[in-house]
Amino acid sequence: MSDNTILSDLVDSLKCLPGVGPKSALRLAYHLLQRDRLGANHLSNSISKALEKLNACNLCNNFTESKTCNLCESTSRDDSLLCILEMPTDLLMMEQTHSFKGHYYVLMGRLSPLDGIGPKELNLSKLIDRIKKSNFKEIIIATNFTSEGNATAQYIKDLLKNTNFKITRIARGLPMGGEIEYVDSGTLAQALEDRKNI
Amino acid sequence: MSDNTILSDLVDSLKCLPGVGPKSALRLAYHLLQRDRLGANHLSNSISKALEKLNACNLCNNFTESKTCNLCESTSRDDSLLCILEMPTDLLMMEQTHSFKGHYYVLMGRLSPLDGIGPKELNLSKLIDRIKKSNFKEIIIATNFTSEGNATAQYIKDLLKNTNFKITRIARGLPMGGEIEYVDSGTLAQALEDRKNI
Repeated sequence: MSDNTILSDLVDSLKCLPGVGPKSALRLAYHLLQRDRLGANHLSNSISKALEKLNACNLCNNFTESKTCNLCESTSRDDSLLCILEMPTDLLMMEQTHSFKGHYYVLMGRLSPLDGIGPKELNLSKLIDRIKKSNFKEIIIATNFTSEGNATAQYIKDLLKNTNFKITRIARGLPMGGEIEYVDSGTLAQALEDRKNI
Repeated sequence: MSDNTILSDLVDSLKCLPGVGPKSALRLAYHLLQRDRLGANHLSNSISKALEKLNACNLCNNFTESKTCNLCESTSRDDSLLCILEMPTDLLMMEQTHSFKGHYYVLMGRLSPLDGIGPKELNLSKLIDRIKKSNFKEIIIATNFTSEGNATAQYIKDLLKNTNFKITRIARGLPMGGEIEYVDSGTLAQALEDRKNI
């Protein structure tokens, strides 16, 4: 196969997909070339189109084709609420709950000093700008409950400490259908600490 | 995300990869857009380049950039041997053994009536043409030992029955390091039947 630089180039480029090593890249390459040339063409076009046309929404930072995304432009959302999320997928999950009608801000990551991602790389000034220019009353920080997500939440809280916004964090506790016997002790301790009147 | 037809188009197109469903397609799409735009660009270009430039070698049917691949044009190969394989990956495996110096023919599939792949779809006439125009002495059929691979081998053997070629099939038996206690009975029965003088 030494003559096939185009093929080995394709195999190499497929390795950029997460979880795809040399063997699966070869398998994917042959699949595209042999069994799904139409799909491969579609894939090639849609990647380059997406790279070219999708940009960050100037308000929520999520991917959009226009300057401002539909969700930010919608008049039916609650203008007093902002929910800060790590990733676009988190936004999708949040929307699927149908229980939040405010606005979003997608960080596109989290503070992660080990990976070289600090406040600057995360462009937190865009978030602060957005908050200061808005009429939000409450800022809900919905980063993940990982150490990095928690650090990001704390950092954002600190950035906003001299403002009048109500700053909240989504709740920790037992999941739906959770049984005390099987839950981990950290979650149970948190659920106990955050107990509420009923 | 209803406004993002480009994004959902990208997600859809990623589903053409084997083993990629809606959730992983979304994850891949965000990975490409957020974390590896260079890689994504490379991927898009290399797919379209491969689709455009790679074609079937006129002799061995494997993918090549030229009319005839390097392996077929090589003068250091044994012109009396032809090995018939199902897939290009099989050829790579065969070359890795360094124990075959003849020529190859890649079927790019196998007979599979349930999937609508018959002798015509597999373009077996190209194989027969190749064999008849050559100076091969032995045709080694190295399709897989699946029912479809076996049926393909039998079919090719039947196509060549009135010729003078020696037609062989690669051996079945215990694998390297195989232990009789753990091998399946079909393999053991075959190993027994194909026993040879030592």
